[in-house]
Amino acid sequence: MTLIQKLAAVVGQQNVFSAPDERYAYSYDATFRRHRPDVVVRPANTEEVAGILRLAWETETPVVPRGAGTGLSGGSVPVRGGIALDLTRMNRILEINTDDLLAVVEPGVVTDDFARAVAEKGFFFPPDPSSSKSSTIGGNLAENAGGSRAFKYGVIRDYTLGLEVVLADGRVIHTGGRTIKNVSGYDLTRLFVGSEGTLGVITQAVLRFIPPPEATRTLLTFFPRLDDAARTVSAIIARGITPAALEFMDDQSIRVVEEYLHLGLPLDVEALLLVEVDGPAAVLAQQIAEIAALCREMGSRELRVASTAKEAENLWKARKSISPAVARIKPTKISEDATVPRSRIPEMVRRLKEIAARYDLKMVIFGHAGDGNLHPNIMCDERDADEMRRVEQAVAEIFQAALELGGTLSGEHGIGFMKAPFMPREHGENGLWAMRSIKQALDPRGILNPGKIFPAAQDTKVILP
Amino acid sequence: MTLIQKLAAVVGQQNVFSAPDERYAYSYDATFRRHRPDVVVRPANTEEVAGILRLAWETETPVVPRGAGTGLSGGSVPVRGGIALDLTRMNRILEINTDDLLAVVEPGVVTDDFARAVAEKGFFFPPDPSSSKSSTIGGNLAENAGGSRAFKYGVIRDYTLGLEVVLADGRVIHTGGRTIKNVSGYDLTRLFVGSEGTLGVITQAVLRFIPPPEATRTLLTFFPRLDDAARTVSAIIARGITPAALEFMDDQSIRVVEEYLHLGLPLDVEALLLVEVDGPAAVLAQQIAEIAALCREMGSRELRVASTAKEAENLWKARKSISPAVARIKPTKISEDATVPRSRIPEMVRRLKEIAARYDLKMVIFGHAGDGNLHPNIMCDERDADEMRRVEQAVAEIFQAALELGGTLSGEHGIGFMKAPFMPREHGENGLWAMRSIKQALDPRGILNPGKIFPAAQDTKVILP
Repeated sequence: MTLIQKLAAVVGQQNVFSAPDERYAYSYDATFRRHRPDVVVRPANTEEVAGILRLAWETETPVVPRGAGTGLSGGSVPVRGGIALDLTRMNRILEINTDDLLAVVEPGVVTDDFARAVAEKGFFFPPDPSSSKSSTIGGNLAENAGGSRAFKYGVIRDYTLGLEVVLADGRVIHTGGRTIKNVSGYDLTRLFVGSEGTLGVITQAVLRFIPPPEATRTLLTFFPRLDDAARTVSAIIARGITPAALEFMDDQSIRVVEEYLHLGLPLDVEALLLVEVDGPAAVLAQQIAEIAALCREMGSRELRVASTAKEAENLWKARKSISPAVARIKPTKISEDATVPRSRIPEMVRRLKEIAARYDLKMVIFGHAGDGNLHPNIMCDERDADEMRRVEQAVAEIFQAALELGGTLSGEHGIGFMKAPFMPREHGENGLWAMRSIKQALDPRGILNPGKIFPAAQDTKVILP
Repeated sequence: MTLIQKLAAVVGQQNVFSAPDERYAYSYDATFRRHRPDVVVRPANTEEVAGILRLAWETETPVVPRGAGTGLSGGSVPVRGGIALDLTRMNRILEINTDDLLAVVEPGVVTDDFARAVAEKGFFFPPDPSSSKSSTIGGNLAENAGGSRAFKYGVIRDYTLGLEVVLADGRVIHTGGRTIKNVSGYDLTRLFVGSEGTLGVITQAVLRFIPPPEATRTLLTFFPRLDDAARTVSAIIARGITPAALEFMDDQSIRVVEEYLHLGLPLDVEALLLVEVDGPAAVLAQQIAEIAALCREMGSRELRVASTAKEAENLWKARKSISPAVARIKPTKISEDATVPRSRIPEMVRRLKEIAARYDLKMVIFGHAGDGNLHPNIMCDERDADEMRRVEQAVAEIFQAALELGGTLSGEHGIGFMKAPFMPREHGENGLWAMRSIKQALDPRGILNPGKIFPAAQDTKVILP
């Protein structure tokens, strides 16, 4: 029997795809590099995943776990071919327990579907990556996805109590459990979260949720000077207020959105700040008044406060329209998530603008100001070889700038293949040795998502193939 | 040169101790088993720690990192001899950064000293293990210590952004960094937190802190029926209130404290509940009124609300006096921290009482009701061989009960040597294989804190030697 026949024996013929067009559909994610898997397999349960991994282990075939393919660092692109392991059939919510405030889910559940199911029971699941309408819990866990609410509420790692994981050789383990506190042995749960499918395949997760905030208030304002916006962010936090969102847009982001939607955004400002607070209704009015006073004091203009959900949605419109607005300008978008300590945001924005100017590239900068998580997006055209060479150099300089300012290569997108060449600069030889040792211990044959996180000798370029 | 001479060359003669009485001082922690190290070494900085580990690595000598020795699972007891690595000289707070809300500290800083330094700058470091007056940040990190505030604020892991760690062979690595969001490679920070000194020696930590709550309110009440207390805990949480503390004491805990302090506590009740809420002053009055109404509705008696810090201190008196009260009764205290999902607390308390009765042992039960983290304390006398045999069997049944109810061996004390024999029951062969593989990868010679976490063939007893 061939490997494909053996895989069909595990999951059924109808769940194995090997035609070129079928494999093409699994060759990309939300980045730009493509590589077809040799075969696509769609398991229905943990036993089938274990069966697939045993076959892959025996034949030393790469396995690339995949949810909705919305990743921004290339985590689910099968750069070394092999098996694309599509987990979207495993999409059941197995339990929502409102006594212990926890749920048990399969990896293929769409994030928003899960959040909605929790909300229907009267509770709140905070993790909100921008992709949440289509991305899956498994993908969010593999990348340790963030989102706008992370500053106040944390990332999905902070809502994960336990995991079921199939290891490279098909062994099944259960990490963590159903308790909030757990210090029994090594924290394998948090080792697998964010490991990008390189250490095991998550087949089930115990997630916790919380009571919802009573109310939400939203404020939008504009700053003629970037530094004033940054000072305002620090002042809000120093005042003891922890907003649920603290979103930032630079002048170029404002411009591309305004040209797209004609919302009447001012074009003579350096920054937009969107602040959302949630919590007991009794304190929100005072908090939003305090924030408004701080903004004005620091030099903001055109301050708008939403008093209804509809008005709040309008205030969010500019922020949420950046991606479609940017897509109109150039066909290729390079979305980065270089992250710096909050106090270094102004310096980072200045460096990003200087890099864009030097390489003559169009760049918008926006992101989550509360946790220093910026998203410089370069708009380019992958058919323009000269431009892509400049992009390549600019991206390298962006990473370098983040590291020089005490930051990290990635705040919420992960490393994938895109940032792997820069890992030695952030972690040094010893840090990478420790990570590689763990990888080697759990996956000695290197079959799980090869070509990700760790730089390979041949991968010296970030953007160019 | 002997190893001791070589160690003296690294840290200076005055920081190496090998006399029997000096070694005796490093033979125990807050558990009851003792074992002397062969030598005690007190390094002053990371370079010295690395030098010590290189010597230990070459000679395959066990190294047992140690802070204040307040651990409750035996983590710092040198059960295989070797080098006791006393980190209390490395006790500097290197930075408190109020712009980025982070601090950089050495492992020997006493937890309360650090919390006080942060408070003096107007901020709040929530982790509050009961030992915080004497325990160190390094020890708290090694055990991932919890505390009363963990239900609302999380444990020390949740406040750790980055670590400097010396690995078994003397390599130095830096994990995480200075940003709140960081998904660059494996989450080594959270792998080392809670690893009980078995994977590396933490020599520096980047910790975050937060703005302090505006105000605090405290409520104490008594329940004739345990189930009603448990229902009240669930009802408070379901109402969307997340108390900063939700402490529970059973009838026996109340009795031993009352006999000790004569506070006028009722002796005809099954449970005491202490609830503390913190946050904006504007909402606390309403929250505490809601909680009081819920308590009364569920059948509580003698409800007291503190309106000053002094009154709050009085309400905490019973809870904080359990340990000294218990110490009066019998010389040996076995303090467990079996943890179950919150909804299983009543069942767990019933099982604990049944176990204590069956083995004719004195037991008090108290703990953190919000996260199901119970502390059954057995009062016994280690000179009474028959009693200790019964304790041994009772402790085994306690662990078994926690696991059967979906819980864990340890919520906040760690595994150490005390719970190691039970690790296979919680994690299974595959789970332990994954943990052992990581240990083997990072410390192939097994020199870091041997005899902890992993069960050895000779360690089948929990209490008895």
